[in-house]
Amino acid sequence: MGSRERRDRERMETRDKIFAAAREMFAQEGYEAVTMRAIADKIEYTPTTIYHHFANKQALVTELCHCDFDVLAKQFARASTVADPLERMRMAGEAYLQFAIEHPQDYRFMFMTTLPEIPHDAQFMAEVVGNPESDAYAFLRLACVEAIEKGLLRPELSDSHEVAQLLWATLHGLISLRIIKNHEEWVPWRDLKTAARNAMDAMFRGILRDPTALPKGQEAEAALSAADATTK
Amino acid sequence: MGSRERRDRERMETRDKIFAAAREMFAQEGYEAVTMRAIADKIEYTPTTIYHHFANKQALVTELCHCDFDVLAKQFARASTVADPLERMRMAGEAYLQFAIEHPQDYRFMFMTTLPEIPHDAQFMAEVVGNPESDAYAFLRLACVEAIEKGLLRPELSDSHEVAQLLWATLHGLISLRIIKNHEEWVPWRDLKTAARNAMDAMFRGILRDPTALPKGQEAEAALSAADATTK
Repeated sequence: MGSRERRDRERMETRDKIFAAAREMFAQEGYEAVTMRAIADKIEYTPTTIYHHFANKQALVTELCHCDFDVLAKQFARASTVADPLERMRMAGEAYLQFAIEHPQDYRFMFMTTLPEIPHDAQFMAEVVGNPESDAYAFLRLACVEAIEKGLLRPELSDSHEVAQLLWATLHGLISLRIIKNHEEWVPWRDLKTAARNAMDAMFRGILRDPTALPKGQEAEAALSAADATTK
Repeated sequence: MGSRERRDRERMETRDKIFAAAREMFAQEGYEAVTMRAIADKIEYTPTTIYHHFANKQALVTELCHCDFDVLAKQFARASTVADPLERMRMAGEAYLQFAIEHPQDYRFMFMTTLPEIPHDAQFMAEVVGNPESDAYAFLRLACVEAIEKGLLRPELSDSHEVAQLLWATLHGLISLRIIKNHEEWVPWRDLKTAARNAMDAMFRGILRDPTALPKGQEAEAALSAADATTK
């Protein structure tokens, strides 16, 4: 390996270490309370090192957001070849659940922490926001638009944003209560994966015009396996 | 007013002020990061004053929890005269939503903040935990037990804890995403009350054996008005 490649690799490793510390500290102490110096201290770097990577805390949180939301969007995008919008919604739900279980710190930072206004640049706005390939919310919402257009949902559910937010919230509620309250004894928590799948089943039954048309996730699983096979 | 009464009232006012500051600071900075001195500073009291009310941070958070969860349980208990368990579940949902809208700081502290293990004393455990009159989760769960026993839910939903957690999570997801992400522009949020009622409708349809038996909340509203009339 050349010295240029080694430097690049080391640079990415340092960046990931800063990200990991920042994610955890923002989620646990709140964005406002965390300083660049405190992040540096946590990973035993000098403040100079951290400023070498990020001009300020705002730049750090902006890149961290772009990175984490991109990982999630990529998980969703694996379902993009699934034609049936209901199966695609189901698959997005499975991908979201899996992301939360595998990356609880990322999840806390992304969905359970009040973040500052992120000043996205024009290129980011044009390429990412609203693009189903790079914006997980847009991915879910597009499936809702298609389900509504095909007449698959109850007629009173004609607002794709409302349906998308309802499906998102169903999983977020289960996941976030578990992250916050898992150790508390007064609620005998049920297995998260089983609970989340039953919740998706119930919510699909509740929004579908024909509740027996429940997406089973089988088409979704086949597509995920195919995607895994090509990327491995 | 006698001097004893005045002292008692002042004592309660100081306690409420400490509670308000602690709630906000625990929710925003995390329980671990907040010191008794910082709480005192925030409300411009001396640390001595705050220790006069609470022996330590653990005692403060324990009393704060008991206080806030008791307020929520009292909101639920107003529905206890409603005979139909589905109407009672619906009414508990409305009460929960109303509580979150009226007390967002309390909500954040209670359901969106990791709290330490609270060492409840034996009397509290015996009288409060699991008692539907003083434990909102127990209230909701009891309605789920009755709905299952009456055969109102789909037969595969036979675990009252799972059903209670599913209903709770549906509302918690909508409420907590709104609290955390309301200011972010990439999601066009829909009105919380409308979304929450549509979510409850969808979830009830999804769990009921007969989806047309949807609780309308009318019996619930009548009972709430009656309760208001007697307490006013």
